[in-house]
Amino acid sequence: MADTSVRPQASDAEPTHEVAPSDAPRIDIPLVTDKLLGTWGDIRRTAREMLKDSAFWRIDGQTHHEHRERVYSQLGLLVQHNAIGRAFPVEYGGENNNGGNLASFEELVLADPSLQIKAGVQWGLFTSAIYQLGTKKHWDKWLKAAIELEIPGAFAMTETGHGSDVAAIGTTATYAPETEEFVIHTPFRGAWKDYLGNAAVHGTAATVFAQLITGGVNYGVHCFFVPIRDENGEFLPGVGGEDDGVKGGLNGIDNGRLHFTEVRVPRENLLNRYGDVAADGTYSSPIASPGRRFFTMLGALVQGRVSLDGAATTASALALNIAVTYGNQRRQFAGASGAETVLLDYGKHQRRLIPRLATTYAQTFAHDELLRKFDAVFGGTNDTEESREDLETLAAALKSLSTWHALDTVQEAREACGGSGFLAENRLVGLRSDLDVYVTFEGDNNVLLQLVGKRLLGDYAKQFKGKDSKEIAAFVVGQTAGKVFHGAGLRQLGQAVADLGQVARSVELGLRAKDQHELLTDRVQQMVADVAGRLRAATKLSPDAAAALFNENQVELLEAARAHAELLQWEAFTDAVASVEDAGTKQVLGWLRDLFGLGLLEKHLSWYLMHGRLSNQRAIAVGRYIDRLCLRLRPHAQDLVDAFGFAPEHVRAPIASGAEKERQDEAAAYYADLAASGTAPAKEKKPSTR
Amino acid sequence: MADTSVRPQASDAEPTHEVAPSDAPRIDIPLVTDKLLGTWGDIRRTAREMLKDSAFWRIDGQTHHEHRERVYSQLGLLVQHNAIGRAFPVEYGGENNNGGNLASFEELVLADPSLQIKAGVQWGLFTSAIYQLGTKKHWDKWLKAAIELEIPGAFAMTETGHGSDVAAIGTTATYAPETEEFVIHTPFRGAWKDYLGNAAVHGTAATVFAQLITGGVNYGVHCFFVPIRDENGEFLPGVGGEDDGVKGGLNGIDNGRLHFTEVRVPRENLLNRYGDVAADGTYSSPIASPGRRFFTMLGALVQGRVSLDGAATTASALALNIAVTYGNQRRQFAGASGAETVLLDYGKHQRRLIPRLATTYAQTFAHDELLRKFDAVFGGTNDTEESREDLETLAAALKSLSTWHALDTVQEAREACGGSGFLAENRLVGLRSDLDVYVTFEGDNNVLLQLVGKRLLGDYAKQFKGKDSKEIAAFVVGQTAGKVFHGAGLRQLGQAVADLGQVARSVELGLRAKDQHELLTDRVQQMVADVAGRLRAATKLSPDAAAALFNENQVELLEAARAHAELLQWEAFTDAVASVEDAGTKQVLGWLRDLFGLGLLEKHLSWYLMHGRLSNQRAIAVGRYIDRLCLRLRPHAQDLVDAFGFAPEHVRAPIASGAEKERQDEAAAYYADLAASGTAPAKEKKPSTR
Repeated sequence: MADTSVRPQASDAEPTHEVAPSDAPRIDIPLVTDKLLGTWGDIRRTAREMLKDSAFWRIDGQTHHEHRERVYSQLGLLVQHNAIGRAFPVEYGGENNNGGNLASFEELVLADPSLQIKAGVQWGLFTSAIYQLGTKKHWDKWLKAAIELEIPGAFAMTETGHGSDVAAIGTTATYAPETEEFVIHTPFRGAWKDYLGNAAVHGTAATVFAQLITGGVNYGVHCFFVPIRDENGEFLPGVGGEDDGVKGGLNGIDNGRLHFTEVRVPRENLLNRYGDVAADGTYSSPIASPGRRFFTMLGALVQGRVSLDGAATTASALALNIAVTYGNQRRQFAGASGAETVLLDYGKHQRRLIPRLATTYAQTFAHDELLRKFDAVFGGTNDTEESREDLETLAAALKSLSTWHALDTVQEAREACGGSGFLAENRLVGLRSDLDVYVTFEGDNNVLLQLVGKRLLGDYAKQFKGKDSKEIAAFVVGQTAGKVFHGAGLRQLGQAVADLGQVARSVELGLRAKDQHELLTDRVQQMVADVAGRLRAATKLSPDAAAALFNENQVELLEAARAHAELLQWEAFTDAVASVEDAGTKQVLGWLRDLFGLGLLEKHLSWYLMHGRLSNQRAIAVGRYIDRLCLRLRPHAQDLVDAFGFAPEHVRAPIASGAEKERQDEAAAYYADLAASGTAPAKEKKPSTR
Repeated sequence: MADTSVRPQASDAEPTHEVAPSDAPRIDIPLVTDKLLGTWGDIRRTAREMLKDSAFWRIDGQTHHEHRERVYSQLGLLVQHNAIGRAFPVEYGGENNNGGNLASFEELVLADPSLQIKAGVQWGLFTSAIYQLGTKKHWDKWLKAAIELEIPGAFAMTETGHGSDVAAIGTTATYAPETEEFVIHTPFRGAWKDYLGNAAVHGTAATVFAQLITGGVNYGVHCFFVPIRDENGEFLPGVGGEDDGVKGGLNGIDNGRLHFTEVRVPRENLLNRYGDVAADGTYSSPIASPGRRFFTMLGALVQGRVSLDGAATTASALALNIAVTYGNQRRQFAGASGAETVLLDYGKHQRRLIPRLATTYAQTFAHDELLRKFDAVFGGTNDTEESREDLETLAAALKSLSTWHALDTVQEAREACGGSGFLAENRLVGLRSDLDVYVTFEGDNNVLLQLVGKRLLGDYAKQFKGKDSKEIAAFVVGQTAGKVFHGAGLRQLGQAVADLGQVARSVELGLRAKDQHELLTDRVQQMVADVAGRLRAATKLSPDAAAALFNENQVELLEAARAHAELLQWEAFTDAVASVEDAGTKQVLGWLRDLFGLGLLEKHLSWYLMHGRLSNQRAIAVGRYIDRLCLRLRPHAQDLVDAFGFAPEHVRAPIASGAEKERQDEAAAYYADLAASGTAPAKEKKPSTR
């Protein structure tokens, strides 16, 4: 049924008044599409072409059992299309193309987020664990089979009792030198593995994370390859589990629980890249520090977070494409002329959709930066301890903001489409349900922001190394107005964003690009400095009191991390605008970037006022300028969502197919004919008195 | 399966440290439960008792077809329990108890929101249309059958092309005097009736809204009783339709589309309380003004909005009960002592849940006020044109805020429960999906807020009646700092809230109750005055320019309406606190009210700063005070959610059943035993160099 809603988008539709006057700047849509598709645009186009096949699309109304089987069979189609192995080495059928692999993977969200995430479980987590945490013997044994879906696998990290705090998981893997085996064991109910894709039905093996114990010492969390089901789909001896059942979304994935009762696997099943156990039980690792070893192993799996940032942004773009297209056709309530007003001509409707479009653009450009960093680290062109740490921080920061933004945007789009938005056929509610869990999996967003915040504090503290307390005090006081600190080393002041202020020709009371940049940067610096200043007392306190002090500042630290991520998005957007040659495109994207920047200022306006960064007059100008920018961008809204480059087969929502315009035209023609025929009923006369 | 998750809540659980010190004030939980259940508490308790039967509960994972049949059969159970007819007259089996009827109806959300809304379609819309818009002949013919579900019916108002703008619907009902019939007709696709519960499968009749045309004159929208299906469930001649299919939630309801091709119904099928057509085609109405007649008919159906306010608030309470209970048991990351920290001890977790609890309390008390107004109007104890208008405004204001709050709160609760929150068994994702459409049905929230805003402007303008423009100008200037206007006449300054300031003993830099009240009131007044001032120019403009001017001010008008609703909620909360005798309860609820008030100030802090209502110093104090209130209320969080009075059969979420505490205890005991046994693996030694 789904394909009945795919109709060609009316490219030859009569222009309605959402079109800008002919002398106004316009964006060059194909050029902007190229920009948005980014570094791996060709691969994204290939993926989108593949996804035009309805075999990949979600069917609404299936039971979760039917949906699971459909998605599982779709994984097979992906293998047939060679769509999933790009990240792996050539000798195992891959292309060693890390950025391209994720770019392609992210696009799957257009077909069905369940397909994206089930593919992510199989290849981004299970197969990647074998590749990233294992060594050649593991690759030779399992990699090709995992890539080709001969071994469907679960990634058994999370436990019922421990999600965010992976280091504290309860599952043990105790080495038994007499048989050269590891004994995988679940000691209590809270240590059951939980929420694992592929665990309830399809998985025949799992990469199981457990505390590695040998010679009476716990060497911390390591990963083991553990077969879990036989060829008939029955659990192997010692393995048990449960189905997690129906979820809030992503019901095409068979999430489930696993537990192990003294399950023995050969010593070789330890994925031993970062830690190994010799036959006699001796432990060795190339990374001496247990903490650094743990974070290195986790960091090897950062691609999940990276790809969620991209997929969430693509989902936001799709939702806005649907809502803006509908908002440009749907009419409600007669306007001054008697004709009904197009929704997107309402001030409130513009305020609901256009700023979210600006944020989605910012995220798209920021994501391409993230993907390039990821590719450089994993492709080896810039793989240092520092670049890995930067990548992890950036991924944590951007993933948090973009996944929350997706929920917010898809929901606003759904509400902006009214009752139509609530029908499954129009896609928005499905996207909303499926994307929901993106904000808490692969790292709970609040936990990720805390990680970013701590990194900011660490970078801040580095500036004081070797200084005595008096110097530090002077520094802390002095830097309030200064620019000595930028944040997480992701972009130093030296490498400031290109071409500031060239774009924004509409000068507004100190709210031009360079002012936006200064205000956003300043806020990050000040917030980090403020938290750091308050936390300095912690060193002199008891552990309990120090923890309480940190806790008191937790909300603000997370807010600082968010501010930092927003700044990075703004900078990426600004760089993208600067790289545009076409004057009309540059102009319009400049407005959109201004809208994003001003939106951030408005969101945090009370902070800017309380900290004396904006006068009342400038603060009042922020809201007014946003209103004007929305109005100025309104004629470009359709162009800007068309530039995402989705084909009708990707959009698939009947309300964005042109059907609404047909209905409006039919109704208007009916009333016009009626009037012309002279048979229209008269209007009731108003009574002379009330 | 659902009932396996129902376990007695651990009332005898050991106190953990969420319990306040013994000398601190505590709330009297049963007393607060009585307060929260409100005026019709006894009826709410009866409904909740009935809903302990698992026959009423939602089963996750059903197809929408199965779910629809289950809910339909549940409607039959409601009839058997005499749970649905209270609002109707005694002679038709009712009790003429309007407030009690809605109170009982709202509680259904605890069993399954689909059950609530399907019951709402049958009795709150379809049957109520017969009762409120019809006359004795209709009651005698159809009322008892509709009440007893012998006639399942659809409420056919909304069309594909017109939701918010009901006056513009396209369906026509043309009187044919020769046969004394109305011809119901759908002239074009956009005029199909759409999103109608009971239309896809179960409905055998519909109350159809159509433009009444007689003698060549259109008398506007009226309602007609139209049979649509025969005893075999087949559409009657001329009637057609479609299934709306799967939706984002509420899939226990068979929403569908209907269209009519010259369907003839007897003249008597016009529900003629507010407008009638004589046999010869002469139109008559007790309300001469077409506009007022239209709004009177619509206003007769206001109970939908009233009940959504209550149901959304109950759903928020349930979500907070689940998340706070879990947050008080779940531990993650080791704290200073080495033991893992309870989630609700984290500053951010407190900030996520406790302010939303404060808002939910405010809404609960405000809803009881709304319900009493509703009961007075519909029960006839205070049924005037003005009281009806007040009721409609208040319902629009409160429904908008509380339905949005429900989505926000349920989502925050779901995220606060992490991956567990995403499992259907834990209720939150189901509530979120089902409640989604509450924000756009029975009046799109933005459209409702605009209605409230226009009412505020109207009330404001009344003050200038008879004044000349010079006086008005002086007035507008003068009132900035004054208090001449309160807003929508819902509560005059004379009837100020009781007992201000007695409660808040913790004096904070001018942020006590009376300051909160002044600041909140002042903001409503100022915003309305500002918008009104800018709109005054409209009278001198062309229609187009006037519309553009209004459009420019739309966002701010909606914001003023929201501010007004927030003030009303604050006042209701304050009155409720004032009515409490018990000192400990009064103290704690006073803090919670302060948290609600301060939360509103924080949300609008930039406005207060820009308009000179708060100094920087006071503004900074707002956030700090909120932090302290969260910390102070943290030991009361469990009491406050327990006070909602839900039984395990209402909560049903395994994570809020005590199971998490059992798991935590088991894990802690395991590690304690291991340590005691002397067989615990040693910790890996840290390397001496990095």
